[in-house]
Amino acid sequence: MKIDEENRGAIVLKRTAEYKPPRSLRTWLIGRPLQTADAPHQTIGKAIGLAVFASDALSSTAYATQEILVILAAAGTAAFGYVIPISVAIVLLLAIVTLSYEQTIHAYSSGGGAYIVARDNLGELPAQIAGSALLTDYILTVAVSVSSGVAQITSAYPRLFEYRVHIAVSLVIFVMLINLRGVKESGFTFAIPTYFFVVLMYITVGAGIFRILTGSLGTVIDPPPLETIHALQGVTAFLILHAFSSGTTALTGVEAISNGITAFKEPRSRNAGITLIWMSLILGTLFLGISYITRFIHAIPSEEETVISQLALTVFDGQVFLYLAVITATTIILVMAANTAFADFPRLSALLAGDGFLPRQLTYRGSRLVYSRGIVFLALVACLLIIVFQASVTRLIPLYAIGVFMSFTLSQAGMSRRWRKIGRLSPGEETIERGSTLTYQPGWRMKMLVNGFGAVCTLVVMFVFAITKFQDGAYIVLFVTPLLVVIFSAIHRHYRNLAGRLSLDNYGAPPRIPRHRVIIPISGVHRGSLAALRYARNLSEDVTAIHVSTDTAEAERIQQKWQMWGEGVRLVILDSPYRLLAEPLLNYIEEIANQRQANEIITIVVPQFVPKRWYHNLLHTQAALWLRMALLFKPGIVITDVPYQVD
Amino acid sequence: MKIDEENRGAIVLKRTAEYKPPRSLRTWLIGRPLQTADAPHQTIGKAIGLAVFASDALSSTAYATQEILVILAAAGTAAFGYVIPISVAIVLLLAIVTLSYEQTIHAYSSGGGAYIVARDNLGELPAQIAGSALLTDYILTVAVSVSSGVAQITSAYPRLFEYRVHIAVSLVIFVMLINLRGVKESGFTFAIPTYFFVVLMYITVGAGIFRILTGSLGTVIDPPPLETIHALQGVTAFLILHAFSSGTTALTGVEAISNGITAFKEPRSRNAGITLIWMSLILGTLFLGISYITRFIHAIPSEEETVISQLALTVFDGQVFLYLAVITATTIILVMAANTAFADFPRLSALLAGDGFLPRQLTYRGSRLVYSRGIVFLALVACLLIIVFQASVTRLIPLYAIGVFMSFTLSQAGMSRRWRKIGRLSPGEETIERGSTLTYQPGWRMKMLVNGFGAVCTLVVMFVFAITKFQDGAYIVLFVTPLLVVIFSAIHRHYRNLAGRLSLDNYGAPPRIPRHRVIIPISGVHRGSLAALRYARNLSEDVTAIHVSTDTAEAERIQQKWQMWGEGVRLVILDSPYRLLAEPLLNYIEEIANQRQANEIITIVVPQFVPKRWYHNLLHTQAALWLRMALLFKPGIVITDVPYQVD
Repeated sequence: MKIDEENRGAIVLKRTAEYKPPRSLRTWLIGRPLQTADAPHQTIGKAIGLAVFASDALSSTAYATQEILVILAAAGTAAFGYVIPISVAIVLLLAIVTLSYEQTIHAYSSGGGAYIVARDNLGELPAQIAGSALLTDYILTVAVSVSSGVAQITSAYPRLFEYRVHIAVSLVIFVMLINLRGVKESGFTFAIPTYFFVVLMYITVGAGIFRILTGSLGTVIDPPPLETIHALQGVTAFLILHAFSSGTTALTGVEAISNGITAFKEPRSRNAGITLIWMSLILGTLFLGISYITRFIHAIPSEEETVISQLALTVFDGQVFLYLAVITATTIILVMAANTAFADFPRLSALLAGDGFLPRQLTYRGSRLVYSRGIVFLALVACLLIIVFQASVTRLIPLYAIGVFMSFTLSQAGMSRRWRKIGRLSPGEETIERGSTLTYQPGWRMKMLVNGFGAVCTLVVMFVFAITKFQDGAYIVLFVTPLLVVIFSAIHRHYRNLAGRLSLDNYGAPPRIPRHRVIIPISGVHRGSLAALRYARNLSEDVTAIHVSTDTAEAERIQQKWQMWGEGVRLVILDSPYRLLAEPLLNYIEEIANQRQANEIITIVVPQFVPKRWYHNLLHTQAALWLRMALLFKPGIVITDVPYQVD
Repeated sequence: MKIDEENRGAIVLKRTAEYKPPRSLRTWLIGRPLQTADAPHQTIGKAIGLAVFASDALSSTAYATQEILVILAAAGTAAFGYVIPISVAIVLLLAIVTLSYEQTIHAYSSGGGAYIVARDNLGELPAQIAGSALLTDYILTVAVSVSSGVAQITSAYPRLFEYRVHIAVSLVIFVMLINLRGVKESGFTFAIPTYFFVVLMYITVGAGIFRILTGSLGTVIDPPPLETIHALQGVTAFLILHAFSSGTTALTGVEAISNGITAFKEPRSRNAGITLIWMSLILGTLFLGISYITRFIHAIPSEEETVISQLALTVFDGQVFLYLAVITATTIILVMAANTAFADFPRLSALLAGDGFLPRQLTYRGSRLVYSRGIVFLALVACLLIIVFQASVTRLIPLYAIGVFMSFTLSQAGMSRRWRKIGRLSPGEETIERGSTLTYQPGWRMKMLVNGFGAVCTLVVMFVFAITKFQDGAYIVLFVTPLLVVIFSAIHRHYRNLAGRLSLDNYGAPPRIPRHRVIIPISGVHRGSLAALRYARNLSEDVTAIHVSTDTAEAERIQQKWQMWGEGVRLVILDSPYRLLAEPLLNYIEEIANQRQANEIITIVVPQFVPKRWYHNLLHTQAALWLRMALLFKPGIVITDVPYQVD
């Protein structure tokens, strides 16, 4: 223990607690506790970062092309040709969004993505909307991706169908536990399946293109029948737009890295930015390749057999092993997508909590240096959703993706606003904002336009989503987001008010205590109450004992004993005609409290009997407990428990 | 407020609390609260007492004869003739038991029946056995009687069958509420149906005997087919004994008055004794009359149609109205039988609690001067039984009646022991025991023999019950009774140990407090913690503030603020490398506590932030609460909450 400094008479001693958490079930489940100083060792590099944050985005290559075809099918197979230009457009949008987020990552190196960008550039309300949209979306990502992974499993093994909810919940808990072990461990654990998927997809796409170039690739043999959901219609601008927005699900997850920058090794922004670009390159090339081969082989969108399955079967015709590997990898990556949400949700909620929009407890880092409460909360809510929606992907998916596009829009709008602010600076000038520092950059006009255009595109997609999926459940999101914003504001207001009440600004010297009255309620005269009496007399000269009497004979006995043991302290026997204990006592205390002078303190010394075993409490009236709860709300009254341990 | 006496310097003031319970939902449900002084007005006379305490016993006339015939049926209809001698024997046993209890009531005027008699004459263990047997039996009485009443209703309206559990639970809650209103009100409410039943039964029996005498009564027209449960066998001594013990269910409830003497107006014993005799007379005559007419009209025991129904149909042939009235009255009296248990269970459990065998809370009389906690507990357990056994009489009834006969046996054995003690006294000599006073009485020998014979009879019946019903569930009772006795003993041991620990015998003057250290844990420097600091400094000169730090920057800020506001008090900053709050603090306090001198006191002053609304607590870590729970068990540490209300 070293004496740090001594001035104005206040001695400050600093020491480090020697307490080391013991081994327990928790250690076994999530690993030994880590010291705060270990934090830098708990960051991840680019390769692991790609596995953690890309699985959500990459998993969408498994279904994005199919989503486009399903819509186009409304205009018959002839319309399937549009899949190529639409895919190119989506990849262009991906490029814009990637560019935008790459800039964001460098500008805001402590993370936060859309929330921080919106906060610093658009204001509190847009920031809260971005935050609530993203948090909702992450919860849905977990529920949807795990459910769709389980759906793949149960379509292979129909006997497992009745256990789908159990399997899904178990998977969520598994991913939760791995994430509680820390970002490094979850990264290592989940890197293998992610890279397995990426490599297999490249083999598939590569083999497909090779066979196209060598002219050896045919079309799908025995394709599933074409199901048209809507009546056959012509190719309209709306249809193309609808197909385009359905395909943009490929973009979900692109924002993930921007929210998780703090997980990366230093130099954070550089590592995160490079990872983002790699992710987008993989995503874009795989998506384009899949769309191209799909078109070439005339694959048909179907509920019975996925487009990926048709593609793998055609490309690898006859090679069952490679086909099965592709299907397995796809299943695993769908479940993996949940891991990205587990990496981002706790970080984003900690950011919101740090700004006072969510309970402060969410900023607490658990024994493994991750925001454990956010992780557990995410798992619980996702499990609840899975149970309520019975792990049905069809019922969950309409709720999904709107939030991400809202955050894309707000993030890009914020960035474009930021460029304008930067354009107004003179070269060399600097403006320091909460999350970043602004310096003049040439070419800000072009960058502003790119971000602005991106914002418009993602806004349009969001509206198309909201309109086309409104009836299927998207209205729930449109209801939940404002509700969350209201809750965030209420929490914020509470913390702000509290800070105001507790603030020491304009706070004079604390008033003196002119009088200190002590009241000691006793149920009998015994060693326990005498210990409390001894303590009470140590506090003040002004002690009053009080016994609420429901039994005259008992009161008589207490009175006699008090003459013997009461040390001259005044005893009030309060006869309670209705046999109530707490109410007459509270009434009496209140009466005294109402007569007190300003700043006078009344201390209630409660002899608290503490039995050896908790269940012995069932054998005693918990008078002390009720008294405390009733008195807590009265100003100027202090409650003291004098425990009397009996063993 | 009057000053009562002043000697040895201790002033004792007496006053009556002015607190009057406000009107509330509770008032509406169970009536306005009564003052303790009203107790004498809350007693009942003989007429109401008969209704309250006899309904259990009288309801058994509805099925006792049938129970005998069911057993005799094993030897064919020819054996039915034995119903008359068996009934006579049962009535003789009834007379013995009545005599015994009449003596008990006069000897033990503060109630308690078998429990008190066994306690004073046989010892603690038999008393506990009697108590546990009776308490179990009262719970079963409620479950069985309400279930059988509901069974009568559902056999009339089969559509209600699926709601039988709901109906039964509702009835139990209804009877509970009426009983919570006080013994007087429940007496009035339930007197009408009880007397309605008695009068109707006398009309039935009277009309039946009148028609037999005038020769106008025939046999049952279209009797139900005879169902023989066992293979047809001869009339054996065992069969007769079995039929006899089945018929003795008529005696259940005879003990009720002895447990409820305190409910009667003064002179209690006299009133209770007369009521007992009236009850036995009604029970005996009705039972004999029913058995006699049943035999005469050749009624057949059957699941389809009860003997009472056959009897009423034959006696009142053609007069549907009277027949329906008898059936309705029978249904109601079966439900009413529960009321007797509600009158006795709380009184008996209060007696046991007063002796320290059950939680003391059971001696507490509620706002209507009844032992409300016992009433509510009885209702809850009975409802639980009804739900678990799905209101099935067949599954509940084997558990029933063993307890009553155990208590009969113990009570009579105790009384016979008491007579022997009385016989040893010389005339004029007195022995004062806990529950009664013994004086010499001539003729004690005869009385001892009567009680002893009664004890043997009821013991035999109990064994026959236990053996014949063992497999049907009676083993549960044989398991529950010892279990309860063990629980009673454990509770008793706890209270006795506690009393020893708290006793002031051989307790010297309370030691002085040589040193008073105050520790004040703070999470920040604000108005709340400064209020606590001000209070802490008022307690002692020796104050240490402690801050557990998980954030270096925050610790730095606190240190700076403390220089400004800390009033020179020492501040320890405890760096917590594992980001834990409570554990390092507890460790530190423990370290100091281990160094303390004898009788030194450590007070932990906890600034407790009290938000306006309870749910705001979700936004704060409840550090104070956890600290309290962890520290309660450490001797010599006092915990003080300094509440800081924010609104």
